[in-house]
Amino acid sequence: MLHRQPVNLPQYTYPCCPWQLIEKQYTPHFLGQMETLYALSNGYIGMRGCFEEGDPVHHSGTFINGFYESWPIVYPEEAYGFAKVGQTMLHVPDSTIIKLYVDDEAFYLPTANLLHYERSLDMQIGTLNREIIWETPAGKQISIKSQRLVSFKHRHLAAISYEVTAINADAPIEIVSKIHYEPKGSGNRQSANYEDPRRTKEFAQRVLLPRMCSAEERRVILTHKTRSSELTLASGIDHTFASECPISINSECIADSGEVVFSVAAQAGVPIRLTKYMTYHTSSRASAQEMSTRSQRSLDRAVKKGFEDLTLSQRSYLDDFWARSDVQIESEPDVTSQAEAVQQAIRFSLFHVLQATSRADGLGLPAKGLTGRGYEGHYFWDTEIYVLPFLIYTNPRLAQNLMRFRYSLLDKARERAKAVSQTGALFPWRTINGEEASAYYAAGTAQYHINADIIFGMKKYVEITGDRAFLYREGAEMLIETARLWYDLGFFSDRENGQFCLHSVTGPDEYNTVVNNNLYTNVMAQENLRYAVSTLTDLQQSQPERFNDLAIKTGLELSEITDWHRAATQMYIPFDEKLGIHLQHDGFLDEQVWDFENTPEDKYPLLLHFHPLFIYRHQVVKQADLELAMFLLGNKFSLEQKRKNFDYYDALTTGDSSLSACIQSIVASEVGHLELATAYAFNAIVMDLRDLSGNSKDGCHIASMGGAWMSAVYGFGGLRDYDGEISFNPRLPKQLKCLHFSLAIREQLLSVEIQHDQVTYLLKEGSGLDLKHQNKKISLMAGSPVTAKLELAPSL
Amino acid sequence: MLHRQPVNLPQYTYPCCPWQLIEKQYTPHFLGQMETLYALSNGYIGMRGCFEEGDPVHHSGTFINGFYESWPIVYPEEAYGFAKVGQTMLHVPDSTIIKLYVDDEAFYLPTANLLHYERSLDMQIGTLNREIIWETPAGKQISIKSQRLVSFKHRHLAAISYEVTAINADAPIEIVSKIHYEPKGSGNRQSANYEDPRRTKEFAQRVLLPRMCSAEERRVILTHKTRSSELTLASGIDHTFASECPISINSECIADSGEVVFSVAAQAGVPIRLTKYMTYHTSSRASAQEMSTRSQRSLDRAVKKGFEDLTLSQRSYLDDFWARSDVQIESEPDVTSQAEAVQQAIRFSLFHVLQATSRADGLGLPAKGLTGRGYEGHYFWDTEIYVLPFLIYTNPRLAQNLMRFRYSLLDKARERAKAVSQTGALFPWRTINGEEASAYYAAGTAQYHINADIIFGMKKYVEITGDRAFLYREGAEMLIETARLWYDLGFFSDRENGQFCLHSVTGPDEYNTVVNNNLYTNVMAQENLRYAVSTLTDLQQSQPERFNDLAIKTGLELSEITDWHRAATQMYIPFDEKLGIHLQHDGFLDEQVWDFENTPEDKYPLLLHFHPLFIYRHQVVKQADLELAMFLLGNKFSLEQKRKNFDYYDALTTGDSSLSACIQSIVASEVGHLELATAYAFNAIVMDLRDLSGNSKDGCHIASMGGAWMSAVYGFGGLRDYDGEISFNPRLPKQLKCLHFSLAIREQLLSVEIQHDQVTYLLKEGSGLDLKHQNKKISLMAGSPVTAKLELAPSL
Repeated sequence: MLHRQPVNLPQYTYPCCPWQLIEKQYTPHFLGQMETLYALSNGYIGMRGCFEEGDPVHHSGTFINGFYESWPIVYPEEAYGFAKVGQTMLHVPDSTIIKLYVDDEAFYLPTANLLHYERSLDMQIGTLNREIIWETPAGKQISIKSQRLVSFKHRHLAAISYEVTAINADAPIEIVSKIHYEPKGSGNRQSANYEDPRRTKEFAQRVLLPRMCSAEERRVILTHKTRSSELTLASGIDHTFASECPISINSECIADSGEVVFSVAAQAGVPIRLTKYMTYHTSSRASAQEMSTRSQRSLDRAVKKGFEDLTLSQRSYLDDFWARSDVQIESEPDVTSQAEAVQQAIRFSLFHVLQATSRADGLGLPAKGLTGRGYEGHYFWDTEIYVLPFLIYTNPRLAQNLMRFRYSLLDKARERAKAVSQTGALFPWRTINGEEASAYYAAGTAQYHINADIIFGMKKYVEITGDRAFLYREGAEMLIETARLWYDLGFFSDRENGQFCLHSVTGPDEYNTVVNNNLYTNVMAQENLRYAVSTLTDLQQSQPERFNDLAIKTGLELSEITDWHRAATQMYIPFDEKLGIHLQHDGFLDEQVWDFENTPEDKYPLLLHFHPLFIYRHQVVKQADLELAMFLLGNKFSLEQKRKNFDYYDALTTGDSSLSACIQSIVASEVGHLELATAYAFNAIVMDLRDLSGNSKDGCHIASMGGAWMSAVYGFGGLRDYDGEISFNPRLPKQLKCLHFSLAIREQLLSVEIQHDQVTYLLKEGSGLDLKHQNKKISLMAGSPVTAKLELAPSL
Repeated sequence: MLHRQPVNLPQYTYPCCPWQLIEKQYTPHFLGQMETLYALSNGYIGMRGCFEEGDPVHHSGTFINGFYESWPIVYPEEAYGFAKVGQTMLHVPDSTIIKLYVDDEAFYLPTANLLHYERSLDMQIGTLNREIIWETPAGKQISIKSQRLVSFKHRHLAAISYEVTAINADAPIEIVSKIHYEPKGSGNRQSANYEDPRRTKEFAQRVLLPRMCSAEERRVILTHKTRSSELTLASGIDHTFASECPISINSECIADSGEVVFSVAAQAGVPIRLTKYMTYHTSSRASAQEMSTRSQRSLDRAVKKGFEDLTLSQRSYLDDFWARSDVQIESEPDVTSQAEAVQQAIRFSLFHVLQATSRADGLGLPAKGLTGRGYEGHYFWDTEIYVLPFLIYTNPRLAQNLMRFRYSLLDKARERAKAVSQTGALFPWRTINGEEASAYYAAGTAQYHINADIIFGMKKYVEITGDRAFLYREGAEMLIETARLWYDLGFFSDRENGQFCLHSVTGPDEYNTVVNNNLYTNVMAQENLRYAVSTLTDLQQSQPERFNDLAIKTGLELSEITDWHRAATQMYIPFDEKLGIHLQHDGFLDEQVWDFENTPEDKYPLLLHFHPLFIYRHQVVKQADLELAMFLLGNKFSLEQKRKNFDYYDALTTGDSSLSACIQSIVASEVGHLELATAYAFNAIVMDLRDLSGNSKDGCHIASMGGAWMSAVYGFGGLRDYDGEISFNPRLPKQLKCLHFSLAIREQLLSVEIQHDQVTYLLKEGSGLDLKHQNKKISLMAGSPVTAKLELAPSL
């Protein structure tokens, strides 16, 4: 159901430009949204797009991935096995602040007379730029140009180039470059202005405790330790300065703050160039002293290299990224400007996915990346189901890193399975440190499908990259423990002719919780069990020693593999003969259909306006659930079946989750509702640019951004990759003339260019690739494009 | 399933004596349990049975019914409509403390050389008595006799008579009589030593804030106000003193403490008699000053009347109570001592039910009465389903008070219905002030059956007492709003042939939550709807003006009554044709049967050892649910059906709730499992005396105590009162020779004496009563006993 049209941010805040996001005037009423959209990150350091002046600010924030505070979850009514340790991503000292004083007059945007204003995020260069001309009350015109980056190449480094010129007069200018931690209102679990329904709450006490700090010449380093999680943090700034004007420099620090003050006797027309280098280091083991030393080294290197070197490496990193990852569209002439906005939005999505994952290295992917503290910086299934496909096909190294991160949680997942009275391993529904942090089991722990989601992502990773080494080392162990969980959780039901049933689970759709035989969960678990069986069987034959080692390590018995095979084979798939549709879960059709007609627009999302029990007793779907199953495991459903299911369920789906529209678009596309598919895809693609969820202030919806790629490539591009076999059945919306993207497949590079009547496949690198085009096999050789005719399925 | 045998407290702690509970030696390892068992209360003031010395103590406590602190319930993950205001019954200043010093040596039980020790609760006199002879280290023998009561007649009054005699020598004796509030550890939501799974938690700040206090001569008055709920409390003590020995008296107070010190030059053999009067007053409106004045007046009156007057009125109150309420048993000779213990236990149960309700007046009945802070002093459905039947048949005035209390919550119940997205009224699952305080909706708010429970209790009250005035005034309004809730909650299901279904509800059994068509809920809701229809129809005919007033007040439309009738008539009753049994709820039989065989005894109660989701996906029942429906609405089931259902469900019922055994006993009795019924009844009757739940320290299980009466009268006595028609079909356990009880029925008094081969019915007061004895009609005239032959159904 498509009920929400793009509404919020007016178009003018980002006039279209395919590689940039440009703000042409200061717009205080979208402060929070712009901070999110303009956030820079490399997946380790994240900095919201706040002004250098530090003020006005909706919600400032610099974040370090995996840097969190833990706290005992207190339930008003507790029960056995409830998650015990909450985790919250923390603000760290803000190092971006550069305050400017001219004639002792502070530069303050809301009251400044601005002769010129432009901010832009440049997705090719990877910088956030601002150019301002400010006329002071005394009539002096001051040019302020800044360029900010968080380095993709240097994980611990960010930098700002800051250039001030007094255009038309001499003036005493003071530039105060700060690093500052604000215990109230930024380092705390703050409720202020959060719009997210599961909003981040306040800590009772300050969590970041100051340790040593130092200020020497142009360098300041602060160190902190978290109160409960006992993580150490060092944050530092250093500066280079270039100007022909006379200058004096002072620096100082105390506990939570440090600053370097540049006092310049500025001369008219002579630029003052300041470069600020910012570094962050965190550790769970190292001392404050050691972390401080690491910061010193990072800053030494940064200062030595200089800002230009940073921008060059940034550009080169992004050139490589876009070459592999860009999705290009060409529109029909009548919709050019709309298409340009879409082109911009697609790139904006991919850019933020890169920002969220690039240097996460051994860490996870927070739901909002590092652009805001929505969902407390937790890692969810978004990773494997919404973001991993894009990375697998464009940046397989990043995909592997995320898989390795999941593997690193396996021991904690084993503990968690025990805690919920099961064997095997149960990955946490939401977490930072690997411990389950979901405090509402109905829409948390009960989403056992997280296990199958992770395995699904891993399977796709292995099949598309061909990385069997990972499969046989880490993957196989994950398969054993996840399969165990499923086998232990389910049972062969006499009442269902001995079929294998999974009860009291929650699927992706959080408007139907703790149900029996959620179809998504059942088919995903089936896939998980099957993949465990086939992988272990292969491993036993191909590497018997490795198999034996693994069997010993995990206590695996051969009979377990037989059991899993039986469970997979006999998996129960709920189906309603009368309506001829699958059931989202056993009792779904027993419920009343939600009264959509009498639900006004402002009552969405429903979860903010109705008691859960009221929602649960209706046929209403928050987000793609059965539809998601039909996409991920589409080879288990006939096209006819998909059509029937889509027609029934899509009408019930409110899309109250940002994880929905992209999937609805793909399935709509497949079953022939091309206009609807286009509308859904547009929703997914502009989710944050148009603030469709109304909570972009809290951070970007990274899953929807990965989903934007999927709705282009899987949706309109018609890519399917069941069991690693590549096929295409594209369907181009009428607004588009051409859709182009590249895919890395088993170390080969495929370019796909789709037009309305034909598709051109080009293997740019590789030894040869077989694929199917509309069910016809095509064999590609490197360098030889193949153009195939596109038979259009009738649109419904 | 009967899996737990009486275990904990050894028999010797209460040698049998049918009217007393006697402790013959100081037993420190049962401190907590004895404090609970020896608690005194009149339903307004409750005092745990702690020693006068105030030490040693497991968990001291004086409570005032309805005196609570409120607090915002904080959820780690919140959702729309979750209960917002938590409420916790508070400790109030402890006024029972009397410290004794001889030769400046403190009397301290754990180290004292006791030549004699006896404590006893006397259920005929209504006092807690203690007699001790203490030999001091100096060899002086000191007799200490105390008698404590909480007055049934004077709601705000308690008293202690305290007599000390230096038997064999003169000695300086100091008696320090205190009143004291301990902010840490007693007034707070303490976790210390609580064994209840839903234990009371700590407040962050002290909640009882001291206001004015005064100490004059032998009187001390303290006043306090609660921080958040803003209730005012005055607690006061006063004393009379009688001795021929020289004495000096001093009193003082500060904030939370006051004391009166009696320094006596005691002479050998000359008794020192001190009487302490304690009074408590609470208000939500009055000032500390005003409350203090009220206390002064109460103490003035008490001192004037004297202790003897208090004991006389106490005795007379109890004489009347026992005449109406006693259940007497006579045993076969071979089991005399066991039978005596049962006789004692039955009386102990009835005594505590009286203590919990007697002077509650306009207040509710906490789950533990006022004997401990388990379940935070909340009022539950226990009131109507477990305690009300006893009160209706023996103390109808108390039953009416409880009904009036429920009516007083109606406006808040209307608000609550709105909060959970429904119309009508939804009574809170647990509350003190009328607001829902359940913070776990699955086993709280989802128990919508509370509405029907209240109406069920009200219907029984009206039918047995004949109080149609209440029905037509308060009752009818409650019926309208509860019927509305049901009609709004449910729907006519096309998939169930248009039958009326109730989805996403939780029945009494908290091991199966948020289910569809819980049979108990459906039949109870049906009864609620039917009673609404019949009452309103009667009212419209008999008192059209009153009906019109009510219709205007509630906005009632006649079509609603038609709707309710249709919903009741078409109510869906889940039944499994294959097994020929009713379903506890729609999917119950789809679950796996719990693996009882491999569940060791120490894994019960299951809720403390398994994750809720694990429990939910099994066929396992915490407490009588379908069985309870078969008891309360037994006329909706054939005997054959009850047998089949009982055989299936009783084997799955762990009895992990104290609300279970009594019901299981009654149904077991009805379907012919007389030995099992006897065992269950024994469990219900000695629940606290044998600490069967292991948490008697936290307070008595008042519901099980009311249930003890039901298992005697409804179970073995075979009473049924469907729609107010009285019938008997007794089944006496082989251990008993005779069972005797009295019932007040529509202002007549019926005595029933059951023997193995006959039953004698005697109408002691009244104009004539018709009843059925084993399906044969008997008409009784006052004063003319009728003896009927008892045909014994074969025991299974």
